[in-house]
Amino acid sequence: MPSTVTVLKDVTEANSILAEGLRAGFARSDVLVLDIIASPGAGKTTLLERTIEALHGEMRLCVIEGDPATSLDAERVAAAGVPAVQINTGGGCHLEARMIQAALQQLPGGEADVIIIENVGNLLCPTGWDLGEDAKVVVSSLTEGDDKPLKYPMAFLASKAVVINKIDLEPYVPAKVSVLRENALSINPGLDVVEVSCLTGQGIDDWLDWIRAQLARKRGAKTDHA
Amino acid sequence: MPSTVTVLKDVTEANSILAEGLRAGFARSDVLVLDIIASPGAGKTTLLERTIEALHGEMRLCVIEGDPATSLDAERVAAAGVPAVQINTGGGCHLEARMIQAALQQLPGGEADVIIIENVGNLLCPTGWDLGEDAKVVVSSLTEGDDKPLKYPMAFLASKAVVINKIDLEPYVPAKVSVLRENALSINPGLDVVEVSCLTGQGIDDWLDWIRAQLARKRGAKTDHA
Repeated sequence: MPSTVTVLKDVTEANSILAEGLRAGFARSDVLVLDIIASPGAGKTTLLERTIEALHGEMRLCVIEGDPATSLDAERVAAAGVPAVQINTGGGCHLEARMIQAALQQLPGGEADVIIIENVGNLLCPTGWDLGEDAKVVVSSLTEGDDKPLKYPMAFLASKAVVINKIDLEPYVPAKVSVLRENALSINPGLDVVEVSCLTGQGIDDWLDWIRAQLARKRGAKTDHA
Repeated sequence: MPSTVTVLKDVTEANSILAEGLRAGFARSDVLVLDIIASPGAGKTTLLERTIEALHGEMRLCVIEGDPATSLDAERVAAAGVPAVQINTGGGCHLEARMIQAALQQLPGGEADVIIIENVGNLLCPTGWDLGEDAKVVVSSLTEGDDKPLKYPMAFLASKAVVINKIDLEPYVPAKVSVLRENALSINPGLDVVEVSCLTGQGIDDWLDWIRAQLARKRGAKTDHA
């Protein structure tokens, strides 16, 4: 089926070109864009809720939610008090740059410091699709097991940081936080590793500091070049 | 991008035709084939290990393992004592009938009562691909949250049964087994629901009985038609 590969390549190339356009626009308007990827139920939306609660007064946040169906996540995020747009992929397994372009029309223009994209719950498909983001962040929950970086290496290779979530459950599961961390770093030694429990709040401050550092670095880099 | 849709349709149609051929072969050799789908880390491989330990002397089992990378799962299953073939999809997000056809060449011919296929860890992509199986079974772990049937309805619509796993963790997470069960049945009222903990062994007997019933039904149906 070589024709499939060819067409798929065309689609991903068109996606990459559009994503570079979005990236240039994000740079002009000085906004940090993060693309959160993870398995279903790893805790992406709860991490977002925690992030919004903590950073809402400090910086202007917007959220783009990707799901195969329902607007449950956008409702949760909007309830937390920030502008949120839901993209339903109709069963599609990842977001694409054209969906982000469309979603941006529905967000308040030029008003954000940080846009957080929550991708479709999927540890494979989103990894190859550039959305114009500054960084992808993979959320890996301890309850999924500590071997996931080995079995799904692309998600860890494509990301700048891994958030290890549900560390409060370590006493009750066979997986170990230390093994998950080591496996992630064995795949991508450059990963920033943040360990949190979105349920208890443990480690969330480290995650907030990571976001602050990315925003400062982006704005500092721009100032340096000005 | 309409050409993509067309090509994809051709590929899935070819897949469906091949899958029907496989299904006819499975019927001739009197083998029950199950396709296990789930998010990464829901517990598919541990469920398989438990199944093999319990049924090994009672029926002849074979396993086909699908993963984007590594042969960790096939090694675990082979260690449990049954023939196992690993399919690496090279990052691909689901198995296809042609991969099953190839894997069958490497399994002992005509010697199985039950072939269990463990699909790639992904709650979306495998749902639309017929592998010639008698039934798909979705494993949904409680730690993923109890809203997954609503957000990923296709997996629950495509399946004959849902195995709710990790029920031992209910005291430690916000999700409830009863809500997960209700949400699954709201999407597909015909689902068989089995609740287990692969860690403690709770409920595993119900799962084994479900497999026994499927095998008896398949062989009974064949006898009826003979």
